[in-house]
Amino acid sequence: MMKIDLNSDLGESFGMYTIGNDSDVLNYVSSANIACGMHAGDPFVMHKTVRLALERGVAVGAHPGFMDLNGFGRRNIVMKPDEIYDLIVYQVGALSAFVKAEGGRLQHVKPHGALYNMAAKDQAMSEAIAKAVYDVDPQLVLFGLAGSWLVKAGEAAGLQTASEVFADRTYQEDGSLTPRTQPNAMITDDAASIRQVLTMITEGKVRTATGKDIPVKADTVCIHGDSPKALAFARSIGEALQKEQIQITSFIHR
Amino acid sequence: MMKIDLNSDLGESFGMYTIGNDSDVLNYVSSANIACGMHAGDPFVMHKTVRLALERGVAVGAHPGFMDLNGFGRRNIVMKPDEIYDLIVYQVGALSAFVKAEGGRLQHVKPHGALYNMAAKDQAMSEAIAKAVYDVDPQLVLFGLAGSWLVKAGEAAGLQTASEVFADRTYQEDGSLTPRTQPNAMITDDAASIRQVLTMITEGKVRTATGKDIPVKADTVCIHGDSPKALAFARSIGEALQKEQIQITSFIHR
Amino acid sequence: MMKIDLNSDLGESFGMYTIGNDSDVLNYVSSANIACGMHAGDPFVMHKTVRLALERGVAVGAHPGFMDLNGFGRRNIVMKPDEIYDLIVYQVGALSAFVKAEGGRLQHVKPHGALYNMAAKDQAMSEAIAKAVYDVDPQLVLFGLAGSWLVKAGEAAGLQTASEVFADRTYQEDGSLTPRTQPNAMITDDAASIRQVLTMITEGKVRTATGKDIPVKADTVCIHGDSPKALAFARSIGEALQKEQIQITSFIHR
Amino acid sequence: MMKIDLNSDLGESFGMYTIGNDSDVLNYVSSANIACGMHAGDPFVMHKTVRLALERGVAVGAHPGFMDLNGFGRRNIVMKPDEIYDLIVYQVGALSAFVKAEGGRLQHVKPHGALYNMAAKDQAMSEAIAKAVYDVDPQLVLFGLAGSWLVKAGEAAGLQTASEVFADRTYQEDGSLTPRTQPNAMITDDAASIRQVLTMITEGKVRTATGKDIPVKADTVCIHGDSPKALAFARSIGEALQKEQIQITSFIHR
Repeated sequence: MMKIDLNSDLGESFGMYTIGNDSDVLNYVSSANIACGMHAGDPFVMHKTVRLALERGVAVGAHPGFMDLNGFGRRNIVMKPDEIYDLIVYQVGALSAFVKAEGGRLQHVKPHGALYNMAAKDQAMSEAIAKAVYDVDPQLVLFGLAGSWLVKAGEAAGLQTASEVFADRTYQEDGSLTPRTQPNAMITDDAASIRQVLTMITEGKVRTATGKDIPVKADTVCIHGDSPKALAFARSIGEALQKEQIQITSFIHR
Repeated sequence: MMKIDLNSDLGESFGMYTIGNDSDVLNYVSSANIACGMHAGDPFVMHKTVRLALERGVAVGAHPGFMDLNGFGRRNIVMKPDEIYDLIVYQVGALSAFVKAEGGRLQHVKPHGALYNMAAKDQAMSEAIAKAVYDVDPQLVLFGLAGSWLVKAGEAAGLQTASEVFADRTYQEDGSLTPRTQPNAMITDDAASIRQVLTMITEGKVRTATGKDIPVKADTVCIHGDSPKALAFARSIGEALQKEQIQITSFIHR
Repeated sequence: MMKIDLNSDLGESFGMYTIGNDSDVLNYVSSANIACGMHAGDPFVMHKTVRLALERGVAVGAHPGFMDLNGFGRRNIVMKPDEIYDLIVYQVGALSAFVKAEGGRLQHVKPHGALYNMAAKDQAMSEAIAKAVYDVDPQLVLFGLAGSWLVKAGEAAGLQTASEVFADRTYQEDGSLTPRTQPNAMITDDAASIRQVLTMITEGKVRTATGKDIPVKADTVCIHGDSPKALAFARSIGEALQKEQIQITSFIHR
Repeated sequence: MMKIDLNSDLGESFGMYTIGNDSDVLNYVSSANIACGMHAGDPFVMHKTVRLALERGVAVGAHPGFMDLNGFGRRNIVMKPDEIYDLIVYQVGALSAFVKAEGGRLQHVKPHGALYNMAAKDQAMSEAIAKAVYDVDPQLVLFGLAGSWLVKAGEAAGLQTASEVFADRTYQEDGSLTPRTQPNAMITDDAASIRQVLTMITEGKVRTATGKDIPVKADTVCIHGDSPKALAFARSIGEALQKEQIQITSFIHR
C-alpha cells in the first residue's frame, strides 16, 4: 500500500493572539510543524500544541523560523550560515524539550517561511540547517521542498529527508514553484489540486505550468488550515487519498 | 576530602553587546550557568559559551530567566506557575541542544535574577520550576538558594539539588540574605568573605549580621566575574580552598 | 446638555496577528486608545488605526503599556518611576508622530493594563506618568480610573484629566473596582450596566456592591469591542445616552 | 569661513549592555545620531543620551534602524516601502518626544546600518524614508551617503539634506564606497584619512581607489568613537579642520 504524509503548520499563536484552527487541522494531517517562538509561537503555545498533537496521534516536528515575530518569519533576512546553524539548534532544542516533557519523540524539522524559501535555493544555508538538525538528533527527518538544496543537504548530512509537495501551487520546468508574483502561481480549482497531488504521489511526476511533465518526489504534502475553505480542502484531499488506497501516515509511525 | 562547587553566570552577551569576561572566569569555576536567550544570551552566544566551557572542563548548566532582555531578568514579573513551567522547559531545552551538539551533557539548572529570588520565597513557583527541570531530564541538578523553596521543591520533585551560598552577602537569622537595600547587606572585605565561605563549607554554619550562628548547607558558591576585582577575588577564594584541602569540583565530575 | 466621552482600546493587532473589531468599535466611541508597540500594536498597525480613527472623527489617544507583548501588558512588572517616565515618553512620542503625519492632533494618554492598574494605587508611578505626559505635550488629557492616583497626579502636574468609569464592573466603598477575583466583580446584566453608567453620569454617584451610594466622577466610559456581544452592548449604551440627551463627544471636540 | 558638520552614532547601549563612549565622542562632534530602540537603544538610554547631547550643545538626530536588536541593524531585511515608512515615523516620533521633553529641537534623521546601505541604492526605500521624515517634521535634515538615492529622495521630498562622507573608506568611480569585502576598502593611515576629508570639504572631490578624481559633496563627516583609537582620530581630524579654518558646526546652529 502506498503511503503519504500530510503536514501542516501549527502552534502559530502568540500570547493573547490566535492564529489557525489547530484542533481542526489535526483531524486531517499526520505530521504537525510546530512554531518555536521566533517567528511565531511562545513557550505556552508550544506546550499546548505539542500535547494536543501527541494526544491526537499526530507526529510532532519543529518549525523553526527567523527571529521575526513582526513579519511572521516571511521577511528575507541575510544571516551567515553559522548563525543559521545556531538558530536551528536553539529552536529545535526548545521544542524538543516540550515533546520530551510530554513523553513523546520529535519526528522532524521543517524550516518556516523565508528560511525555507531562501534555503531551498542556497546550498550553504541548507548545509547549515542540515548539520544543525543532525547534531541535535541524527534520527530527525528533514522536510524540504522536493528537489531543493534542503533535501540534498539533508541527504548529504546523513539525515532521512522528506520531499515536500504543494497541492495548490504550480511548478516550473526546473522543479521549483512558480513565484506567487506570477498570475498562474496558484491552483484555485480544488479538483485540479487533488489531481496534481495524486499524480505526484502515484506517478512521481507533475505537469508544469508550461504543460510539460517533470519528475517530482512526493513524501509529504503541505496542508493549510487557516480558513474554513482550507479545512474543507484538507478533508477532500484526505477522502481522495483514501479512495485511491493511499495511506496517510507520518514517518515515525511507519 | 571535602568538595565544593564554584559556579558563575556566563554567556550573558547578546548580539554586538558584550558582558562579562567568560574566558577568564572559566579559570576559577567548576560550573557555568549559561543564559538561554530570554534575559540575556542569544543562540550564537550560547553556542560559543557552551563550547568554551566544555573545552575547559567546566560543567554546563542552563540559566533561565524572565522574558526581559531590557531589564536583564532583574525585574519582578508576575506570571502563573504554569507559565513559569513552560518558560523553564523552553530555555533548558534550547541550551541542552547546544550541549548535545557539542558532545557534552547538561549538568544543572539555576534560575536567574528575579526568577531565582521570587522562587526562593514562593512555593508554587519553585514547584513549577522543579517539575519543569525534572520533566526535561530527571538527572539534572537544581541549584537554589540554601534553605529556599527552590531547594525544597527540587528535593520533593525527586531531583538532586545544590544549595547555593554567597561569599559577599550577609545572612539574616531565618537563613535568607540581607536585602541589598539594607546598609550591611554586602561583605566588602575579601578576607571576611573568604572566612564566611570556609566556615559555611567546613562547619555548615554562618554568622548572621546580628551575630548569631545559624546552620547553612553549602554545596556551591556563587562567583562573580564581571570586573577585574571580581576575578581577583575568584582567584583568592580558589587559593584559600586549596590551602584548606577543599576540592573544587562540579557535580557531574564527582 | 450633558456630555460624556466613550473610549475603547484599539490598534491591538500585531504583524499577522489580529485582535479586535476596530472598524466596528469606531462607530460607537468618541475616543480611541491606540496601542503603541510595546504590549500590542506595531508601527504598521498604529498608522492604519490612527488614520481610521481620524477618518471617522474619533479622537486619538496613546495607550502605552509595559514592554510585554507576550503577556499583552497584563503582567505586573516592577520598574522604577524614572523608567516608567521614559516608557511613557517613548510610546506617546511614537504614536504622536503618526497622528502628526496624518494631519491630526493627539488628544489623550491612557495607560494600559497592568500599568494602569498598578499606577492607580501607586503615587510615584502616577507622578512619573503624569510628568511624562506633560513634558511631551501639556495639552494632552490624562485618562485614569476615577478617584485614583493617576487622576490626582495628572491634576497636580497641571494636566487636564478624564476620570474613567466602567459599566460592567462593581465598585467598593473606597471607590476602587471590586477585584476580578471576587464573585461579584462583574455586572453581567446589560440593563444594570446601563443604569450604573447613567447614574454615574447624571448623579455623580454609584451604588457599591455592598449597597452604599458613593460619589464618583464620570468623564469617560470604557467600552469593550472584542466580541459581537460587546459591540451590541456598545450600541445599547449609545442609544440609552441619546435617549437621556447626554451627548457622546470627545474632549478635543468640545 | 567654510563649515562642516561632524556626526557620530550614539545611544547604542541597551539595558545593562553598554556600547560606545558617548560622553567622550560628544567632545568632538557637532551632531549626534541617537538610536531609537529598534536595532539599539531603549527609552532609558535614549533619554540619557538626548539630555547629554543637548547639555553639550550637540545637535540631536534620530538614528532609526531595522527591528533587529540581535543583529544591531546590520542584517539586510526585506520590507515593503510602506513598512519602511512606518518604521521611520515610529522611531523619529519616539526620539523626538525625548528631545521635546528636554526642551530641545530635533535636527536630523540618519538611517542606520543595513537600512542606510540598502536605501542608498534603492529609490523606493529612499522615497519612503524621505516622505516619513517630511511628514513627521518638514524642518528635519535628512542625512544620507553623498550621491545616494537617500539624498536625492530627500531633496525631491522638499527636505534639507546633508551629504555624508567617510574619512576611513575609499571610494569607487561611481561615487559609492568600496565594499568592505574588498582589500582596499579601508583607509588605515590617519594622515591619509584626514587628507581625504580636507580635499572633500575644500575642493569637493575625492580620489578613488583607482586613482581618478571624482566630485563629491561633503556636508557632514561620519566619526567613529567606539575605541580609544577612534577617539584619537576624532581629535586629530578636529585639529586639522581648525588649522584649515573650517568651522565644525551642526546645521541647526548655523
